[in-house]
Amino acid sequence: MIGKEIHEFAQQLWPLNRSITGNGTRETLRQINLHLPKLLIKSVPSGTKVFDWTVPKEWLVREAYIITPSGKKICDFSKNNLHLLGYSIPMEIDISLDELKKHLYTFPEQPNAIPYHTSYYKENWGFCLSHNEYKELKYGNYKVKIDSELYDGELNYGEIIIPGKNKKEIFLSTYICHPSMANNELSGPTVLTYLCKWLEKLSDREFTYRIVFIPETIGSITYLNYNHKEMKQNIIAGFNITCVGDNRAYSYLPSRNGKTLSDKIAKHVLTWTDPNFIEYTWLDRGSDERQYCSPGIDLPIASIHRTKFAKYPEYHTSLDNLEDVVTPEGLDGGYWAIRKSLELIERNKKFKVTVLGEPQLGKRGLYPSVSTKNMDQKILLMTHFISLCDGNTSLVDIANRLDVPAWNLYDMIDKLKSHNLIIENQ
Amino acid sequence: MIGKEIHEFAQQLWPLNRSITGNGTRETLRQINLHLPKLLIKSVPSGTKVFDWTVPKEWLVREAYIITPSGKKICDFSKNNLHLLGYSIPMEIDISLDELKKHLYTFPEQPNAIPYHTSYYKENWGFCLSHNEYKELKYGNYKVKIDSELYDGELNYGEIIIPGKNKKEIFLSTYICHPSMANNELSGPTVLTYLCKWLEKLSDREFTYRIVFIPETIGSITYLNYNHKEMKQNIIAGFNITCVGDNRAYSYLPSRNGKTLSDKIAKHVLTWTDPNFIEYTWLDRGSDERQYCSPGIDLPIASIHRTKFAKYPEYHTSLDNLEDVVTPEGLDGGYWAIRKSLELIERNKKFKVTVLGEPQLGKRGLYPSVSTKNMDQKILLMTHFISLCDGNTSLVDIANRLDVPAWNLYDMIDKLKSHNLIIENQ
Amino acid sequence: MIGKEIHEFAQQLWPLNRSITGNGTRETLRQINLHLPKLLIKSVPSGTKVFDWTVPKEWLVREAYIITPSGKKICDFSKNNLHLLGYSIPMEIDISLDELKKHLYTFPEQPNAIPYHTSYYKENWGFCLSHNEYKELKYGNYKVKIDSELYDGELNYGEIIIPGKNKKEIFLSTYICHPSMANNELSGPTVLTYLCKWLEKLSDREFTYRIVFIPETIGSITYLNYNHKEMKQNIIAGFNITCVGDNRAYSYLPSRNGKTLSDKIAKHVLTWTDPNFIEYTWLDRGSDERQYCSPGIDLPIASIHRTKFAKYPEYHTSLDNLEDVVTPEGLDGGYWAIRKSLELIERNKKFKVTVLGEPQLGKRGLYPSVSTKNMDQKILLMTHFISLCDGNTSLVDIANRLDVPAWNLYDMIDKLKSHNLIIENQ
Repeated sequence: MIGKEIHEFAQQLWPLNRSITGNGTRETLRQINLHLPKLLIKSVPSGTKVFDWTVPKEWLVREAYIITPSGKKICDFSKNNLHLLGYSIPMEIDISLDELKKHLYTFPEQPNAIPYHTSYYKENWGFCLSHNEYKELKYGNYKVKIDSELYDGELNYGEIIIPGKNKKEIFLSTYICHPSMANNELSGPTVLTYLCKWLEKLSDREFTYRIVFIPETIGSITYLNYNHKEMKQNIIAGFNITCVGDNRAYSYLPSRNGKTLSDKIAKHVLTWTDPNFIEYTWLDRGSDERQYCSPGIDLPIASIHRTKFAKYPEYHTSLDNLEDVVTPEGLDGGYWAIRKSLELIERNKKFKVTVLGEPQLGKRGLYPSVSTKNMDQKILLMTHFISLCDGNTSLVDIANRLDVPAWNLYDMIDKLKSHNLIIENQ
Repeated sequence: MIGKEIHEFAQQLWPLNRSITGNGTRETLRQINLHLPKLLIKSVPSGTKVFDWTVPKEWLVREAYIITPSGKKICDFSKNNLHLLGYSIPMEIDISLDELKKHLYTFPEQPNAIPYHTSYYKENWGFCLSHNEYKELKYGNYKVKIDSELYDGELNYGEIIIPGKNKKEIFLSTYICHPSMANNELSGPTVLTYLCKWLEKLSDREFTYRIVFIPETIGSITYLNYNHKEMKQNIIAGFNITCVGDNRAYSYLPSRNGKTLSDKIAKHVLTWTDPNFIEYTWLDRGSDERQYCSPGIDLPIASIHRTKFAKYPEYHTSLDNLEDVVTPEGLDGGYWAIRKSLELIERNKKFKVTVLGEPQLGKRGLYPSVSTKNMDQKILLMTHFISLCDGNTSLVDIANRLDVPAWNLYDMIDKLKSHNLIIENQ
Repeated sequence: MIGKEIHEFAQQLWPLNRSITGNGTRETLRQINLHLPKLLIKSVPSGTKVFDWTVPKEWLVREAYIITPSGKKICDFSKNNLHLLGYSIPMEIDISLDELKKHLYTFPEQPNAIPYHTSYYKENWGFCLSHNEYKELKYGNYKVKIDSELYDGELNYGEIIIPGKNKKEIFLSTYICHPSMANNELSGPTVLTYLCKWLEKLSDREFTYRIVFIPETIGSITYLNYNHKEMKQNIIAGFNITCVGDNRAYSYLPSRNGKTLSDKIAKHVLTWTDPNFIEYTWLDRGSDERQYCSPGIDLPIASIHRTKFAKYPEYHTSLDNLEDVVTPEGLDGGYWAIRKSLELIERNKKFKVTVLGEPQLGKRGLYPSVSTKNMDQKILLMTHFISLCDGNTSLVDIANRLDVPAWNLYDMIDKLKSHNLIIENQ
């Protein structure tokens, strides 16, 4: 089960302090690079204008904690990087509890969870802690220590282009900006790493694959800023890969128009993976599809999730971990749902039968010689399939009409092609 | 509540003997004219050919009644103008009860109601009375007196054009040919009078408004006969306004094809006015939409009603009155449903976001600086709205997709326009 | 009831040994020819290449039976031609029961039925018998006698072209290759014979009718091989006629795309013939529609059945007979369902009202002179109909929108045409 390897890789990436910039993110990319030697790690300087945005300063944290009046060290960044508000500015002060509380974030509905908060675009500092711990805080003098730095540095992302016979591209994107959380986000970059490894080995790739590991939002905006014209010209389908690691559900989030090839493929694969898969709408979006499908960009990008961001209780808290939420089985299911989608896109041709009228299958050994009252189901499926090979209907559309998973037709297609009974229509 | 003023105006028009021609109709137009000084009162001579029809003679009634064998005056036109069959010819005879009965109209299902009947296009005379009164009639000699006149005169209607920035027109039509009945019809001309008063004061009107007060059927045929080419060229939406005065339901009657802008707007406004609004079909039509949507005319005209004609028990009887059926609240609801529809047509632009990717709302103070697990609903709605501003989707379509009333977006649109984040697409 | 005559004709054809070639098939055509003197009986030589197929040898059977060890003659072809496996080669041997069983076909689920089997395209021999008879067979020496012949001969079919005013064609096809079975197939050729007789007498036919009586599969492939270009050019609708003789259900089988004129007509007629009619899908096909709707042929052919092939227990067995399965009432229903479909295709014009606005029906005596609260249903239907005569909507579409059977409108249409109120739009 490949999910086991992916889970181990996620454990390895867990402690790194990822954010939209900085060392943790670079180190994450470097470790992915060990799996994918052809990955290019790119950088864009702080201050660069990208569409309506500006690449922010780079953020570095050496240490951060609070000392309570009784001398206890709490909210220690070195123990859990969620404790520090993302992009906190440096700070070293003595402060009353009332003043401190203006900088503390908790999530009372889940009192034992450390919530995840950031303040990327407004200078601020703060700590996140469990509501239970928060409630125990006594009046008195607190010492705050944040040894961080915000400086002109760079934003980093990884890119890999895997060429195919066709210049048309499949686009796969995931993000690498969240610190220690498992489904959102380590499931994304780890599953995508293993999908890349499979794609690189895939012989006879039909399409070219453009794959990016980027910080969410500012990363996709930056990437689009430089590449959107080429992307619009070449990309025929793609997926934003996130929240693909728990074993509780399969979910689909559409592109903005909901009718792209990616949407059709995702719905077909999920229908035959889990008939109870959840179908979200564009209004449930929340990740980089917001950029990829924005007006004027309009890329055909949909999402296949296990349990979608914002739809599980552990989301954006310290409870989103690699023990209780993300599992080898969960990652395995996420990996295969996307892999089957890519396999189907590769095979999604329009076939045309080469003879007029029904072909005589019997003389080719494809049909029983004695007619009987009840026909064999496999032969029936073959005659159904041939009857729909009009050269205008793609494989996924035929499979939908036949109400079977497309992959059940792959062997039959190969057999019919070997008998020259069907050809691919260009 | 504007419904109160409208109700008072309806009381004032109540006693006039309206028909498709004649003094009562002219006086009705004159009183509307007092509210709308720019109203033009037009006339077309009897005998004029209009499409497949001929403008009929003008009808005048001085008095009409029956004297019973016991000397009692019944069916007295001066007490209720419904008593006289519309367009009755002059008559003065003594007659037996059996002969008289051939000219009496009752509605046994509602024995205390005087029904409303007319005979515009075939010379005839008759009286309408309650079935209870009818049952009391004794055998004997009856005296019939109808002092009416049918003569070459004119057909009258009122027209007002309220210009806007755009030559494209919104068409509003109502009828003024029914005697003393409230929902069908005084609600129509009185509500439309007050809509005109609002439209005249509306600053910065986008569209031009063509508004007519006409006799039903022959009036709309006459008006179309002279104006249909210009109307087809300019009219983009419109409503036939009738039965907008009771407080029991909201209803929608489609145009013939059911997919015009008027249909879309009416359904949107009614969905958010009363989720239980009744949706009729073209086969339930019965008023001037029959002409406006007839083949070859094909104007985009739909209807917004409170309780539709022929769908309430008091319809076309003396029970359709200003006390029990039409109320200030009912008129108010009818007025606002149509006004909101017109406001939405005025604002129904296609917006286009001015940046690629999502705009950075934070730097404009439109987004919170600290990311949190649960996003504010108003901000979420703004990001949804922006994500659909592709320049091809009208406001009502966006509102439908967002499942919110369009008017909830008006302030947000103004704010986004002031930040130059969206523009109107021409 | 015409079903009675059709049933008698079916009884007459019953005993003939029909197959895809041979004397029984020719004699069947000859007897149809007595009803349809203009029928042309065509022949195509064995060995002719037709699309992906080859016309097979002609098959002749003189006698065939088995002698049991006790000397009893069983599986006697002269008693029931289903006993012999279709296209059995000549055979005369003594054989053990175990060896014989390799050539015996039964249907254990229906132990008293003789099943129907063939082996057209692979040389073979065999007998079909009831499972009850099969179970009684004792061990011992059996004598098999099949005096058959397979030789270069011809494949036969019947064709009749009935010209109309328009060169556009309606295509009707049925098959004549099954031995003694009633619903599948004698109902098909007998009902079609009587439809032809009606069509020949029909005055003022709008369309040309192309009608064929062919062996199933190889016959339609052969016919298409020679005629498909002309057929594609001219045929606007058509039906494959089979299983139209029992009285248990009405059924519809669509063309491949399901949206042809034939589909629309069949659904309309069946909706108003039997609201519980069964709607099958393309995946339930099984007769010559497989060829007529195959990719590249794509003729607009649908099927109207009573109980469809493969959907009744007696199908393809000796129980599919003229006593218990096919009845005069059943044949009558099949005949009329198709005849009404053809009548509707003949009348399926697009009508256009000749005046703008509603016509004044009153002056033509088509409307009551006194307006009343409740309108007559017939007049209402007429005003509905006129309101939809926009010149772009066919009769069947109007009837569907009005939710009435099209034939309820025929008289009204004739009346409106006689008043010059509607014209046919070309």
